[in-house]
Amino acid sequence: MGMTITEKILANHAGKNFVEPGELIMADVDLALANDITGPVAIEEFKKAGGEKVFNQEKVALIPDHFAPNKDIKSAELCKSLREFAKEQNILHYYEVGRMGIEHALLPEQGIVLPGDLVIGADSHTCTYGALGAFSTGVGSTDLAFAMMTGQCWFKVPETIKFVYYGKLNKWITGKDLILHTIGDIGVDGALYKAMEFTGDAISSLSMDGRLTMANMAIEAGAKNGIINSDDITLEYIRSRAKRPYNIFKSDENAKYADIIEYNVENMQPKVALPHLPENVVDVDEASNIQIDQVVIGSCTNGRLEDMRLAASVIKGHKVHPYVRMIVIPATQQVYQEMMREGITEIFIEAGAAVSTPTCGPCLGGHMGVLAKGEKAVSTTNRNFVGRMGHPESEVYLASPLVAAASAIKGRIAHPKEVVGDDF
Amino acid sequence: MGMTITEKILANHAGKNFVEPGELIMADVDLALANDITGPVAIEEFKKAGGEKVFNQEKVALIPDHFAPNKDIKSAELCKSLREFAKEQNILHYYEVGRMGIEHALLPEQGIVLPGDLVIGADSHTCTYGALGAFSTGVGSTDLAFAMMTGQCWFKVPETIKFVYYGKLNKWITGKDLILHTIGDIGVDGALYKAMEFTGDAISSLSMDGRLTMANMAIEAGAKNGIINSDDITLEYIRSRAKRPYNIFKSDENAKYADIIEYNVENMQPKVALPHLPENVVDVDEASNIQIDQVVIGSCTNGRLEDMRLAASVIKGHKVHPYVRMIVIPATQQVYQEMMREGITEIFIEAGAAVSTPTCGPCLGGHMGVLAKGEKAVSTTNRNFVGRMGHPESEVYLASPLVAAASAIKGRIAHPKEVVGDDF
Repeated sequence: MGMTITEKILANHAGKNFVEPGELIMADVDLALANDITGPVAIEEFKKAGGEKVFNQEKVALIPDHFAPNKDIKSAELCKSLREFAKEQNILHYYEVGRMGIEHALLPEQGIVLPGDLVIGADSHTCTYGALGAFSTGVGSTDLAFAMMTGQCWFKVPETIKFVYYGKLNKWITGKDLILHTIGDIGVDGALYKAMEFTGDAISSLSMDGRLTMANMAIEAGAKNGIINSDDITLEYIRSRAKRPYNIFKSDENAKYADIIEYNVENMQPKVALPHLPENVVDVDEASNIQIDQVVIGSCTNGRLEDMRLAASVIKGHKVHPYVRMIVIPATQQVYQEMMREGITEIFIEAGAAVSTPTCGPCLGGHMGVLAKGEKAVSTTNRNFVGRMGHPESEVYLASPLVAAASAIKGRIAHPKEVVGDDF
Repeated sequence: MGMTITEKILANHAGKNFVEPGELIMADVDLALANDITGPVAIEEFKKAGGEKVFNQEKVALIPDHFAPNKDIKSAELCKSLREFAKEQNILHYYEVGRMGIEHALLPEQGIVLPGDLVIGADSHTCTYGALGAFSTGVGSTDLAFAMMTGQCWFKVPETIKFVYYGKLNKWITGKDLILHTIGDIGVDGALYKAMEFTGDAISSLSMDGRLTMANMAIEAGAKNGIINSDDITLEYIRSRAKRPYNIFKSDENAKYADIIEYNVENMQPKVALPHLPENVVDVDEASNIQIDQVVIGSCTNGRLEDMRLAASVIKGHKVHPYVRMIVIPATQQVYQEMMREGITEIFIEAGAAVSTPTCGPCLGGHMGVLAKGEKAVSTTNRNFVGRMGHPESEVYLASPLVAAASAIKGRIAHPKEVVGDDF
């Protein structure tokens, strides 16, 4: 019987020829990741369990990105504990403020995660790397501590749901719209402990940045991982990035799926997830009467160069609405630099947007744009739970960079064509 | 008898021909300023006192800069109250995130404060505008509320100390070094409730950005205000900025001073104020064994374009020390934009520094670089009190952008010549 890409990667890392859904395995990890929130907890568990040296200094990544640059004394202490552990253990992949980025944007960008890898991270959006044809998933800090010591983690092999996106994407549709549509369809528990395998013409023509956005939000449907079979776009992406060998795995034609779900994307409209769940998805036009106070463009979901280019293409020559704060947060220093070189930052500043240094910041109500009572934000981030970006009575509307940018100009949720017209 | 520039401006705004030190006067204010910390308190007092309309919508400035972009729900609520009052009162000089800057950098830059003005602000560093030949001083939120209602404020006319800086400035010396030297000499209460009038050859050749730094820190010697007589450099600065009439006042030759203090600046060395007072000033070489964790370049003291140019001239071609976080915060959106256009931001990013959107941030331990226990920072800001930048057991060393930049490269407090050599 055939295997899915997810099963193949898990089998490979468990030293087996074959695994099947439901099977419990112990597998080697290629990278164990933590940030400034989860890292200190994992480090404490690591020490409590008698850990002395991490299993491999090159296979642990510690990245202060959530509340860094330190937003208060508590976050300063958390970052300090991460930094000191990294120094003491001589961790290769520690990235300091000014040399860093949001973990899930930085690791693919720097070629630290590659196709065929098995990656765990003490952060739910670790599933992002599935876009490269890797198996990656979020774990608790205790599991991470165990992996930091042993290089291994246990898994229950997930069933896979295959999603087929067919038809040609129209110019308004991004990876964000595809994944919002999907979550809107199956719900926030629609893929509970399953692998979401994204396939079809529309995926084949989707950029790597768009794919990373899709895999990133697999967790928002409850999935164990999101994954895309490697193709030419993958290989082109990693060509200049890979500094070590990697393995290309692909789902067999006769692989077994728990379900196959098909979407015709041809006439899809841009999507918005209304408060307070990512599954509350509507076409943008159904939400266009909602006045907003803030727009956030950034995060591990949509803070990459393509996202910035898309937003800038709408913003260019316009001014941010006087009642709206537009906060742009490039996900990494490299994105920050490329934005500058391409004139994208200039477009944002001219329009009256604030451009921050990389941080997760407002996505989780951390800093750099927290909402007051009653305020509404359109955000390119991944979650719109109650109080996610600040006050429990504030609201977050999830959307693509195109929709977010158009909304910043209009002062209400808007279709990008309202700003740039149909000739975009 | 002659009058000083301070006395002349106060007399002019009190409708008098003559005032003398110690006299209590009621004077008209040209601008009443508040920020996101002090504004909400002033607004509450304004309403409590029955205030309905501000005395003049064009003469009140409300600027969210301290904890903006909102660092938490509380700061979000404060900014919201400022914003709503500005909207309700139709305040001309309200500057939103993305269209703003640190108050004391923004107001001179935008020509909102001009020579001969009388400005009060609910922020101690309101004394900055003295560099333009204005009288400006910090007041409490209640005094500010009264001024917002009536357009007036009471003052006790201060005595003036005249500082004469003679000799030619060497290339390592900036306005920051001059003012640190002065505070080191007279102490943090050396000019208590007095005007500090900065004069002499060295001031005549000092740039406007350097002058703003000096006037900014007058409060650190306890002064009521710092002031510099307008000259060609002043007029050149305001030429393209002034959009309304202004008055040039100058101290009479026979004005009476409480004291005249002279400094020969010819062979001055760069200065550092050690923790925990701005008066603990030493030559940089005396502090060069101190290892540091963070460098901050920014604030109302040293976040202007010249400061960024100076820092970049040292950083260019070097990398920030691996154990140091270097956080650069342009004081306004315009500085941010000009830094980009001149390639300065590129230099910082290449070196591994984080470049933030404008905010007061770490200067007062707010956000964007708060220190953990035991950490040390070299900062271009104005105060190094216990816990000012974070944990009560952290330390802040005040210095110029040149010294701060050199320290970021070396990982310890350093003279800029250690990085760029003597041919700088």
